[in-house]
Amino acid sequence: MTLRLGIIGVGTMGSDHARRIAETINGATLAGVSDLIPERAQAIHDKFGAKIYEDGLDLVRDPQIDAVVVATAPHETHEQFVLEAIKLGKYVLSEKPLTTSAAGCRKIVDAEIAAGKRLVQVGFMRRYDKGYQEIRKAIVSGELGEPLLIHCAHRNMTTPPVYNSDMSIVETAIHEVDVLHYLLGENYESALTFLPKKQTRYTHEGLHDPQIVELDTESGVHIDLEVFVNNQMGYDINCRVVFEKGEIALHAPQNTIVKVAESERERIPAEYTERFRQAYDTEFQAFVDGVANDALTGPTAWDGLVACVTCDALFASRDEGGVRKQVELPETPQFYIDNHMD
Amino acid sequence: MTLRLGIIGVGTMGSDHARRIAETINGATLAGVSDLIPERAQAIHDKFGAKIYEDGLDLVRDPQIDAVVVATAPHETHEQFVLEAIKLGKYVLSEKPLTTSAAGCRKIVDAEIAAGKRLVQVGFMRRYDKGYQEIRKAIVSGELGEPLLIHCAHRNMTTPPVYNSDMSIVETAIHEVDVLHYLLGENYESALTFLPKKQTRYTHEGLHDPQIVELDTESGVHIDLEVFVNNQMGYDINCRVVFEKGEIALHAPQNTIVKVAESERERIPAEYTERFRQAYDTEFQAFVDGVANDALTGPTAWDGLVACVTCDALFASRDEGGVRKQVELPETPQFYIDNHMD
Amino acid sequence: MTLRLGIIGVGTMGSDHARRIAETINGATLAGVSDLIPERAQAIHDKFGAKIYEDGLDLVRDPQIDAVVVATAPHETHEQFVLEAIKLGKYVLSEKPLTTSAAGCRKIVDAEIAAGKRLVQVGFMRRYDKGYQEIRKAIVSGELGEPLLIHCAHRNMTTPPVYNSDMSIVETAIHEVDVLHYLLGENYESALTFLPKKQTRYTHEGLHDPQIVELDTESGVHIDLEVFVNNQMGYDINCRVVFEKGEIALHAPQNTIVKVAESERERIPAEYTERFRQAYDTEFQAFVDGVANDALTGPTAWDGLVACVTCDALFASRDEGGVRKQVELPETPQFYIDNHMD
Amino acid sequence: MTLRLGIIGVGTMGSDHARRIAETINGATLAGVSDLIPERAQAIHDKFGAKIYEDGLDLVRDPQIDAVVVATAPHETHEQFVLEAIKLGKYVLSEKPLTTSAAGCRKIVDAEIAAGKRLVQVGFMRRYDKGYQEIRKAIVSGELGEPLLIHCAHRNMTTPPVYNSDMSIVETAIHEVDVLHYLLGENYESALTFLPKKQTRYTHEGLHDPQIVELDTESGVHIDLEVFVNNQMGYDINCRVVFEKGEIALHAPQNTIVKVAESERERIPAEYTERFRQAYDTEFQAFVDGVANDALTGPTAWDGLVACVTCDALFASRDEGGVRKQVELPETPQFYIDNHMD
Repeated sequence: MTLRLGIIGVGTMGSDHARRIAETINGATLAGVSDLIPERAQAIHDKFGAKIYEDGLDLVRDPQIDAVVVATAPHETHEQFVLEAIKLGKYVLSEKPLTTSAAGCRKIVDAEIAAGKRLVQVGFMRRYDKGYQEIRKAIVSGELGEPLLIHCAHRNMTTPPVYNSDMSIVETAIHEVDVLHYLLGENYESALTFLPKKQTRYTHEGLHDPQIVELDTESGVHIDLEVFVNNQMGYDINCRVVFEKGEIALHAPQNTIVKVAESERERIPAEYTERFRQAYDTEFQAFVDGVANDALTGPTAWDGLVACVTCDALFASRDEGGVRKQVELPETPQFYIDNHMD
Repeated sequence: MTLRLGIIGVGTMGSDHARRIAETINGATLAGVSDLIPERAQAIHDKFGAKIYEDGLDLVRDPQIDAVVVATAPHETHEQFVLEAIKLGKYVLSEKPLTTSAAGCRKIVDAEIAAGKRLVQVGFMRRYDKGYQEIRKAIVSGELGEPLLIHCAHRNMTTPPVYNSDMSIVETAIHEVDVLHYLLGENYESALTFLPKKQTRYTHEGLHDPQIVELDTESGVHIDLEVFVNNQMGYDINCRVVFEKGEIALHAPQNTIVKVAESERERIPAEYTERFRQAYDTEFQAFVDGVANDALTGPTAWDGLVACVTCDALFASRDEGGVRKQVELPETPQFYIDNHMD
Repeated sequence: MTLRLGIIGVGTMGSDHARRIAETINGATLAGVSDLIPERAQAIHDKFGAKIYEDGLDLVRDPQIDAVVVATAPHETHEQFVLEAIKLGKYVLSEKPLTTSAAGCRKIVDAEIAAGKRLVQVGFMRRYDKGYQEIRKAIVSGELGEPLLIHCAHRNMTTPPVYNSDMSIVETAIHEVDVLHYLLGENYESALTFLPKKQTRYTHEGLHDPQIVELDTESGVHIDLEVFVNNQMGYDINCRVVFEKGEIALHAPQNTIVKVAESERERIPAEYTERFRQAYDTEFQAFVDGVANDALTGPTAWDGLVACVTCDALFASRDEGGVRKQVELPETPQFYIDNHMD
Repeated sequence: MTLRLGIIGVGTMGSDHARRIAETINGATLAGVSDLIPERAQAIHDKFGAKIYEDGLDLVRDPQIDAVVVATAPHETHEQFVLEAIKLGKYVLSEKPLTTSAAGCRKIVDAEIAAGKRLVQVGFMRRYDKGYQEIRKAIVSGELGEPLLIHCAHRNMTTPPVYNSDMSIVETAIHEVDVLHYLLGENYESALTFLPKKQTRYTHEGLHDPQIVELDTESGVHIDLEVFVNNQMGYDINCRVVFEKGEIALHAPQNTIVKVAESERERIPAEYTERFRQAYDTEFQAFVDGVANDALTGPTAWDGLVACVTCDALFASRDEGGVRKQVELPETPQFYIDNHMD
């Protein structure tokens, strides 16, 4: 039984997903595509034969579409498609952030609970990265004792002029916000955003760069995160978990090491697509397998909400000059305690 | 169009391939299975629903099977299934070595030439490893000048009692024999096997361990290869290509690095399945895509023959006390000049 | 002209220095020794032939002693010997911290200014570590742009029961406080100590472990420092300076790398004596050369005062629950602008 | 008691040693200097105050000189000074090679045996490198089992036009010839030099580059050594000892690691003076301490002879087209069994 997937939104991210479904994923075909820009949908149709839907909602509603991938921009547009899929009892994979407000996330969460069945997977693909999975294993096994501190850096080479300080949080830091919450298996108690006085000369109007984020979990694990999105040097994702008896640090996989010009060199990827290709592939396969098994296993709508609420606290901290803010999370519904990603 | 694959031989390697086809590869299903041991075939049927064929030749002949994977043991049994597939004009992926004699390879090569169409891919999966691909790119680009020397080590943790000195060459060293020939894009002129006086105490009757292999190509690149199959320490594959202006060295990908007990540790894989999982996946996807495009692109039957002839020279060198032997290759048929892997 | 050095205080650190002077340093001999515990002084006498002085002040005053090394404990005892040396116009190398209070440092600074000649070198040996020197060079050269952020960790394997939270700052973090001030060539504007809720179970009464220190310089460089003194894993000193165009990170020198038991291992030193042996040797040679040239070049008494004042701000921050505190430094006297370490 | 050293020959190497004695070594002063080029001797005199001797033999004979360092070029000139020192019962450190012929070494050896006292240390400084010392420790301890194979590479960035194929052996490979003999604690049984057909375009008339050297010890350890002296990339010394249960590999110490331009970089030294500075310092200190204790501990004249005899076998192999040659060593005199470096 090959799963017929439809995708809504085929910009950079979405068209990469379209290719992934068509060429890499096992057990699925790309059956439908929709985009507000007709040329984009046409290009996907021409390449992979997917049927074009002018209106994304029609794609969701078509019985020829078994499950839906939502990769639209801006992110607040995710909501309507996700809600429609839930209404129809169809599985849906939504790119992160699930939506841009805690209230929006709440609507999706309530709809899913009302549906009585888990239907939504959020695209926090880092959870599927082999490196983070190894860190998760070290935390769960306890072999190095308890985790105490986590030092992270999220570094992009450059950003376009439209990229602003808010996006450093809700587009960039949100990856760490989600994945650390997953790795540790607990919620954040407080959040803080500090804007160092000295910035890179490679930043632009509207973007404070770099920024420092701090998170403290309920058990007291302390996290610091450098967000530096114009570092000129590479897409460099660092995560060092300090335990009672050691440390485990993320490492971008190296296939070769080069000696040239008085140096021995490992490669730092230029792009997130290179760095996290394996994570995206694994994430999509997990979604397709989850649908096939009628049991999703990935990041939930509730994870989407937790990330949004945490980002809100980071904004509040920043706007109040870097004070530590409580992260005011509603109680986790039993539905999501029963349906969380292991 | 989903490709219906049948697999003959589902021991360790073959059953891993069966799983790969069923769960990982895009565009194919596992439609048939055959094995001399009925329980093995039954297990694959139970897990993935593949139809069982008592006789592998029946599998090859069934019109419900679009293409064939041959993973039988001992390796000389590959030949009949490959020849039958060629006769029927069906694509076939054969595990390496293609067969165990140069004469056997020649029969396959002649049959394929007679068929007038490339139908055979040989399972030299290392060519698809990202690391070797990066080395290939460095050689082709010339960015470090010309390659001059290659230092390799092929290390397995342990071997079973049945593993002998011949297998160190034809099962183990054959991977380097093939992949270096591919990386350099040229043939070997001479071959040498040296048996060092001192051996590991972890070897057993019938196995000289370690062994040293040397190969010199037509252009004069000098290669040395340590084959050490009971090194107790891990599955550790090294390949350092020395150019006129630098070096590029293979590296087993690391996802994390651990600090513990006064050391900072990278992981050495325990098994080839861990080390080359990506290569196997890519190899199979290339085969399926090749069949779908009606144009195979991977290692050819001629590559299988080149490896066998080279291993014969290594045996001859060893048996004559380590003298350098000419590698007597027949001229490459035009068919394989037109159909070689880039 | 061989310099005749006298040492006061030959505990662990001081006796290591005695050996260093006697066996490693060029241009000096160990002429005198004094310790409150007579056996200690006797041991040094027996080993290296140094004359014993019951009272350290007698050692300072003896014309047979050209210059003095002060390594007494507790640290407030440094003051009297340093002041006496200044009074006599003798060069003196004092272990860090110079003394334990800003007021004590001030007395020394004033005495030295009054003497009209630089006579004091403070034992901030890290400035002489090759790694920090390379970082210094990268900062001064500007090749990676401006420094923006510094991420540090100061990790000791274990501490004795007497070691307490104050010592985490004034004995341990003080190394980073000094060396970063030197590397950046500027003063701190603010300081903060954060005590994470979750501590290691390997700590003891009176010691909060780990602690987080933050420092922001006048130009706005933001520094975070993990102080974790019972990490069980090694003496692991990290310093990553993030620039506008890259990063330079300290690395404990490796002479060999070992492959064993499915891992490739670099060594993490167990002790600071192993990690910073080269730095101590270079520091002492610089002192001896400075005396020989009648021109000290190392860390000054003013550096000692800056470190004390900064530590005081860290204590205040901690005691007020982790608020950011201004570092209230007196204006740098012209004498120390003219006499700072390059 | 400060040792008064005289140095004969202050070219590049010798003047570096003069500086070392004057500025770095403990317990010695540079009392005398001699060089055929008067300006060179004058420069050392001006810098460090050493007395100038027109004739090196006068320096050796002067009672004001306690011990002698010989760093003359060409290397056959070492012999007369070493013999004169032995005759006078003075300790002498001779640069490597001790002299250029086995016969010359034999004369020195015989003179030293006749003197009845060990007086000669040969400048095989690599034995004092921390990395080789760690390898030595691993071999002696047996913690990884028995050593079986050693893979080495000796790479220089460039060589001057005068550098020829003989020098690749007797100036360059001789370092590995000596240090591996020391590390393994045994003699070589056979030696082989192979000239690969393909050479670097950066070589010049009279120099075959790269060359491959192979050595097999009496117990059967097999060694391969790449000698590549115009590799354009750095001074890169590799030594990987393969044991029954693992590997230990030499590593050039890194003090920092830099991230820039999509790569993470370790430094490869440009020059041997940078790579082996610590080894030279330790070597000289050992000589001075040995003289002070009236008991030399370093590489002996016999080690000098062993290296010469082995190089002769390497030349013979090369001249006969790469055949394996026996290394015909005379029996080790009891004197050198009693007086070898541990």
